[in-house]
Amino acid sequence: MPSHPIDYLLLGNNFGTAEMRDIWSETKRLEKQIEVEVALAVTEGEMQIIPAAAAHTIAECADASKLDLAVLARDGLRLKHSLMPTLNALQQQCGEAGEYIHYGVTTQDIVDTGTVLQLKQALAIIDRDCRAVAAALKQLAESHQYTLMAGRTHGMQAQPTTFGFKVAVWLDEFIRHLTRIAEIRPRLLTGNLSGAICTYAAMGPEGPEVERRTLERLGLHCPNIGWQAARDRFSEFASVAVLISGTLGKIGNELYNLMRTEINEVEEPFSAGKVGSSTMPHKRNPAALEGLASLTAPVLKSASLMYESMHVEHERDAMSWRAEWLALPEICIYLSAQLQNAQGILSGLKVNQARMLANLQLQDGLLMSEKVMFELGKKLGKQSAHHRVYQCAMEAFESQRAFKSVLLEDSVISDSVTPEQLDSWLDPAQYIGSAAQKVAQTLRFADASGFLSPL
Amino acid sequence: MPSHPIDYLLLGNNFGTAEMRDIWSETKRLEKQIEVEVALAVTEGEMQIIPAAAAHTIAECADASKLDLAVLARDGLRLKHSLMPTLNALQQQCGEAGEYIHYGVTTQDIVDTGTVLQLKQALAIIDRDCRAVAAALKQLAESHQYTLMAGRTHGMQAQPTTFGFKVAVWLDEFIRHLTRIAEIRPRLLTGNLSGAICTYAAMGPEGPEVERRTLERLGLHCPNIGWQAARDRFSEFASVAVLISGTLGKIGNELYNLMRTEINEVEEPFSAGKVGSSTMPHKRNPAALEGLASLTAPVLKSASLMYESMHVEHERDAMSWRAEWLALPEICIYLSAQLQNAQGILSGLKVNQARMLANLQLQDGLLMSEKVMFELGKKLGKQSAHHRVYQCAMEAFESQRAFKSVLLEDSVISDSVTPEQLDSWLDPAQYIGSAAQKVAQTLRFADASGFLSPL
Amino acid sequence: MPSHPIDYLLLGNNFGTAEMRDIWSETKRLEKQIEVEVALAVTEGEMQIIPAAAAHTIAECADASKLDLAVLARDGLRLKHSLMPTLNALQQQCGEAGEYIHYGVTTQDIVDTGTVLQLKQALAIIDRDCRAVAAALKQLAESHQYTLMAGRTHGMQAQPTTFGFKVAVWLDEFIRHLTRIAEIRPRLLTGNLSGAICTYAAMGPEGPEVERRTLERLGLHCPNIGWQAARDRFSEFASVAVLISGTLGKIGNELYNLMRTEINEVEEPFSAGKVGSSTMPHKRNPAALEGLASLTAPVLKSASLMYESMHVEHERDAMSWRAEWLALPEICIYLSAQLQNAQGILSGLKVNQARMLANLQLQDGLLMSEKVMFELGKKLGKQSAHHRVYQCAMEAFESQRAFKSVLLEDSVISDSVTPEQLDSWLDPAQYIGSAAQKVAQTLRFADASGFLSPL
Amino acid sequence: MPSHPIDYLLLGNNFGTAEMRDIWSETKRLEKQIEVEVALAVTEGEMQIIPAAAAHTIAECADASKLDLAVLARDGLRLKHSLMPTLNALQQQCGEAGEYIHYGVTTQDIVDTGTVLQLKQALAIIDRDCRAVAAALKQLAESHQYTLMAGRTHGMQAQPTTFGFKVAVWLDEFIRHLTRIAEIRPRLLTGNLSGAICTYAAMGPEGPEVERRTLERLGLHCPNIGWQAARDRFSEFASVAVLISGTLGKIGNELYNLMRTEINEVEEPFSAGKVGSSTMPHKRNPAALEGLASLTAPVLKSASLMYESMHVEHERDAMSWRAEWLALPEICIYLSAQLQNAQGILSGLKVNQARMLANLQLQDGLLMSEKVMFELGKKLGKQSAHHRVYQCAMEAFESQRAFKSVLLEDSVISDSVTPEQLDSWLDPAQYIGSAAQKVAQTLRFADASGFLSPL
Repeated sequence: MPSHPIDYLLLGNNFGTAEMRDIWSETKRLEKQIEVEVALAVTEGEMQIIPAAAAHTIAECADASKLDLAVLARDGLRLKHSLMPTLNALQQQCGEAGEYIHYGVTTQDIVDTGTVLQLKQALAIIDRDCRAVAAALKQLAESHQYTLMAGRTHGMQAQPTTFGFKVAVWLDEFIRHLTRIAEIRPRLLTGNLSGAICTYAAMGPEGPEVERRTLERLGLHCPNIGWQAARDRFSEFASVAVLISGTLGKIGNELYNLMRTEINEVEEPFSAGKVGSSTMPHKRNPAALEGLASLTAPVLKSASLMYESMHVEHERDAMSWRAEWLALPEICIYLSAQLQNAQGILSGLKVNQARMLANLQLQDGLLMSEKVMFELGKKLGKQSAHHRVYQCAMEAFESQRAFKSVLLEDSVISDSVTPEQLDSWLDPAQYIGSAAQKVAQTLRFADASGFLSPL
Repeated sequence: MPSHPIDYLLLGNNFGTAEMRDIWSETKRLEKQIEVEVALAVTEGEMQIIPAAAAHTIAECADASKLDLAVLARDGLRLKHSLMPTLNALQQQCGEAGEYIHYGVTTQDIVDTGTVLQLKQALAIIDRDCRAVAAALKQLAESHQYTLMAGRTHGMQAQPTTFGFKVAVWLDEFIRHLTRIAEIRPRLLTGNLSGAICTYAAMGPEGPEVERRTLERLGLHCPNIGWQAARDRFSEFASVAVLISGTLGKIGNELYNLMRTEINEVEEPFSAGKVGSSTMPHKRNPAALEGLASLTAPVLKSASLMYESMHVEHERDAMSWRAEWLALPEICIYLSAQLQNAQGILSGLKVNQARMLANLQLQDGLLMSEKVMFELGKKLGKQSAHHRVYQCAMEAFESQRAFKSVLLEDSVISDSVTPEQLDSWLDPAQYIGSAAQKVAQTLRFADASGFLSPL
Repeated sequence: MPSHPIDYLLLGNNFGTAEMRDIWSETKRLEKQIEVEVALAVTEGEMQIIPAAAAHTIAECADASKLDLAVLARDGLRLKHSLMPTLNALQQQCGEAGEYIHYGVTTQDIVDTGTVLQLKQALAIIDRDCRAVAAALKQLAESHQYTLMAGRTHGMQAQPTTFGFKVAVWLDEFIRHLTRIAEIRPRLLTGNLSGAICTYAAMGPEGPEVERRTLERLGLHCPNIGWQAARDRFSEFASVAVLISGTLGKIGNELYNLMRTEINEVEEPFSAGKVGSSTMPHKRNPAALEGLASLTAPVLKSASLMYESMHVEHERDAMSWRAEWLALPEICIYLSAQLQNAQGILSGLKVNQARMLANLQLQDGLLMSEKVMFELGKKLGKQSAHHRVYQCAMEAFESQRAFKSVLLEDSVISDSVTPEQLDSWLDPAQYIGSAAQKVAQTLRFADASGFLSPL
Repeated sequence: MPSHPIDYLLLGNNFGTAEMRDIWSETKRLEKQIEVEVALAVTEGEMQIIPAAAAHTIAECADASKLDLAVLARDGLRLKHSLMPTLNALQQQCGEAGEYIHYGVTTQDIVDTGTVLQLKQALAIIDRDCRAVAAALKQLAESHQYTLMAGRTHGMQAQPTTFGFKVAVWLDEFIRHLTRIAEIRPRLLTGNLSGAICTYAAMGPEGPEVERRTLERLGLHCPNIGWQAARDRFSEFASVAVLISGTLGKIGNELYNLMRTEINEVEEPFSAGKVGSSTMPHKRNPAALEGLASLTAPVLKSASLMYESMHVEHERDAMSWRAEWLALPEICIYLSAQLQNAQGILSGLKVNQARMLANLQLQDGLLMSEKVMFELGKKLGKQSAHHRVYQCAMEAFESQRAFKSVLLEDSVISDSVTPEQLDSWLDPAQYIGSAAQKVAQTLRFADASGFLSPL
């Protein structure tokens, strides 16, 4: 029975998608390692570094699916080595040709390059899902370009804005994330096959060419120089994951807050039968939103673990390396759940426009104080206007009276504005500034980025 | 197939012990939750809050081993709730009595108290293994109380010390760790069964008594007030784990460094057949030591995740809670591997005393500079002695000559000391100060602590 | 001009108190180091390890206030050593007796023991302020033992509780924090004066006695064995700070949420002239609460830096040590601001009881669903009751109708309960369970702890 | 007196450079904020949003250097606002025109855009210093392209390599870092001036144009949409700093290890008068290297704090914001010290080639086991060769005998190779593979990158 929540049958889907878990499963990990060994053998056969016949046999017979993990585990205890049992088993599969498996390379060559193959798949999923989230955000921003609601700062109502504006900020962030993914891709998807300490000593002078051809065969980039002791690429990937996860967590937290009983401006998709509480039948909890928000901290934690792995000693060590073994699957798996979860939430989000409007009236005009101040300022000077409006706002708040009434009690103010004018200054619908235009501009930018069209 | 390295068949033992993994397995998690439900029902039956007969049936029929996890997982998708599928299944097992399962409590009561039952087992193992590590350290400190070696500061040879002294410092740390475990135990092993928001509303006025009796039945302490919104106890546990893991990682790193080819003063236990490298037959790597050292960073990161969980909103939320679900098993499992690994290493450590002595002579007396300075200082004044000895030491280092020769070339020094006296000042064996006495004092303290006797 | 926000004139008070900054100021740091040197010299004079006259001169002449930091800084660049410039300057102050300063010890002895003296002052402040916060919490819990409000889980209204209950949970946490402070104090306030690598070699056989007496003179505990290479005590202190800061941040975040425009159940102390926004005159922001909440993350991060410092190599290194130099002042200073801020907030908190009651009615009875279910369950069976109440609750929510009306439309329910009975089931005031008793129990426990009486 | 080590007179240079501290000093922070206010006023005057004359007055009279920080601090206590005191003071400086300062914007507009101006300067320094480090690495890699030394894995000698190869790996990393800086620059150096909640409401329809022109005037990019609630850019900067700092810390740790007494292959620049220890005159500590290595953990910690700041609530909050205030200066300042320190170390590094050669012989040929295996494998089959060579290597290690002798005692081996052939197989100088070619390739790539030519 699994012991890490990622692998729990009941809870695993809270922490990752089946698709992403599969990429990081132990079986797939072995498959990728064997894919590397086979590609290496084929190349070495082609270049006559090993006998061509042996290479053929290896390509035909090396078969991850026939490995018995229990046997490998038992051998591992004896050999105290993480790859040797697999190599021994492969060798058995290939008979005499088995001698030529793993020719001239070292364990870390295989493990690292296998990991990059896993990352290639993971990055494709992350990229795909970021595009899907961006597409959902685009649609939401468009639909709600003019949907009026209260903007809030410091948890308090500040000024009117539109829901589309809020979403467009997120969309703009996701376009940046997609740009980042594109920038790091070639750096990240770079393999390494250069022998014990990256000098290709055992492969002879053709070593670099063996590496180049094998990595090309595997669809990976070739490094300038071996990176067994240079792990910045993985940490860079973790950093981009942190940024994506940070935005997703923020979205989750934001919608969680907007869904509060007392705010009630949105609701996450509800399906019949969904149970909020084992004891309170009325509960309709933001379970999906909490799930979305909850996984940012784990991604950040795993990234900070990853960063420790940059501290390699000498040509390699196994202390810093282990950090990657843990952090890479964790980051990818947590992020996969967030991305999938976000798609479901954003595409099915219930936006309660009536309540948004109602909330705008909750303080009877108080959130229009800036507008009043600027208009009065034209007559009284901004400073003087600020002073009077501040006094009125504090009074309205303390006495829980309508802002308008309090303002009109100030004789200087009532001399400067008619009640009708004041009504228009206090109308939230007339004070969203350039919000809608900025939504439009962001949508155009997103379209022009090319990231929203199908891959 | 599992996707987290903790659960890998081939690599899992690098990250945890089977014993600790078992405690945190999904099955055992369910078992503990059901143990709580049953204890609750029995108490409520006893107190006639639910029918006594129903309580008996629940105690007899509720059976974690008969739950079908695949079915529970499928129901979980529909209900979107983590505990309801289990409750429904239990109810089915118990027939009509099933109505009285989970009477008056909420999901978090069960999950939290179940977790504390898991922690009780985990803490017992950690305590046991810390005692075992302390016992191994004690033996090593005793054996090497007088084993001369170079002390090093800033990575450079500093002065002579003994290997037992180094180990005694670790022993002293472990006695503190054991004290900490004892201090946090009652706080940590405290359950919680107080209903939806800890007010016992659904249980009626006898709620607090239901909780008290149920927790007593489960062997747990009873809180003053519900802690669904107060998670400091788990973070405190994480903190103690950090301290233990910090010492273990330091020991791993220290012995790794002492095992370097060029230092070669210790070797981790070697067994025939152990393979260091898939390509370099001569490699005898500090694999166990690297494993020991490598798991401190993951424990620290999981602890920092745990700390985030203290940030509960209102009476409960599921955002901060999830952090615990991940961090608790991770911390316990990583620590279990470190503790087990440390026992093996410390009890089988090969201490190369000859090399220790040889290394003390590596710089031909330079590491005795303090002694020379203090002795000369008695005649020349400390300041003047420092100046001359510094000059000689720099000269000896630069020219790679014996410290003694350079010292004797200084006429003031050679007027103040005979070559024979100088030889005795330059003898490392005569300059270990109170090292051996301090070892003895620490051993006595450890004995007096009572932590070294069998549980 | 300072470059770290802790030292900014305009913003520094957001990050720390003047009192705590003073303890960690560079001047006070030097003072403490010199206090250690003097205590050492006095002891050594007393024990005739150095001339008694020299000790007297040192005690009289060594004067931190006369050190010229600019000169020390310049010397530091040349000597590339952090303490030597101070020692040289002290020596000059003391004339010939200066030869006997720092006799037999090493830099880290002085710096570490000086740091512990700073920690002693810091811990006294933290302890004092934790007691003050606990006292404020006690008063608030007492005053609001029966103040009805909505309990919330997952950000949604769940059930009625009392404000005093919420506060009592925090009080219980603070009593645990005060207990922790008491437990770690003797471990933490332990000095170290044992020479180059803790063997007392340069001090001769009386070294341990020199240390014992000097530390006693300084009011510190004496270790079993030197801890230059064992830094767990500082990390343990950081851990306790994390727990305290975690509770404070939670309180800040909780009250920030309760102060939201749409909830409006509390308000932080407001003073005339307080400006919320440079452009929106109406803003009354939770500035103090945000300040309180904002400093938990920095404390956590500094603690995670501190933990890295446990990784000492050999008898000492300066890599891990530096982490402490940064983390200790940061943790103490951030925490000081939180503790002071919390006192101000808690003692001046405006509790809006009317709004609490109004919010309880916001969903027209929905938050009483558990009560209804349990009462109906007595007749219909809990399972059947859950099913019906769930359907009614969902219907009431969707149609935004009163829960009561929807319930009474269900013929089975309306057959089982009269409208009058239902009214009483839907009355929040009758469903706070044992909340008030638990407040009382917690208050009694707090009183019995002895932490609330004046020091 | 400052209380944070960054600001200590004696120790501050360990943690940052004067140049970088200056950028983040409180005075410069205010200067930048006022630069933004002035640029805004000038633009608004130009666009006739405020009177042109007022704009001229503001440009002439607003003067950061005349602000009295003590007065501002006192006002801040009363107003409980971080920017208002400055605005009030500016207003006084400008007389009636002062009414038009800060017209239509909010505090965060000014603070954020001011921060970006600081970051612009900081990034220029980081870029310049990364180029300088890369140039130093290039020179070192070139000089030591063929300098033979032992490659080490797991802390143990593995195979021969060259010192230039080790350095070229670092150079390749720095070229990637410089690429990253170039990629993030336009994203990072983006200002924001869009009013209370980024809708430009108070500026009227020309708001976006005001922002565009003002940011152009300040030399910053203009965003698609306001980012008061989208902080990914700062976290991305932190991530790149983490990667750079990670490489620098690794270099520091590597050279620290190579400088160990027992390895002694390099020495950091030594200057006469440098003191290693206050009590051991012979100590020549790797003080600069420890300084270099010690600052990676603080940068990582500050970055992880920065990441927390992505969690903004609603249109803005001050909880997450504060994290940036701390983390940005910390990251830049620590990194500045690392970069400057690295330049000094790398350009003055003493490389002890004789000791490198001597260390290669330390195990009498053992580190050539791979070569022997591959050569023998051609005759015996790789598997069989591995088996025999492994046995001989273990025997040579255990008995501390020359590898050659043990090999020749194996009759199968001695039948397959002459002692002369074996001598050549055991010659480290003949087994560095393609190390030198890879150095050359990396140098060419670095040259082609354009980052090494003067800015």
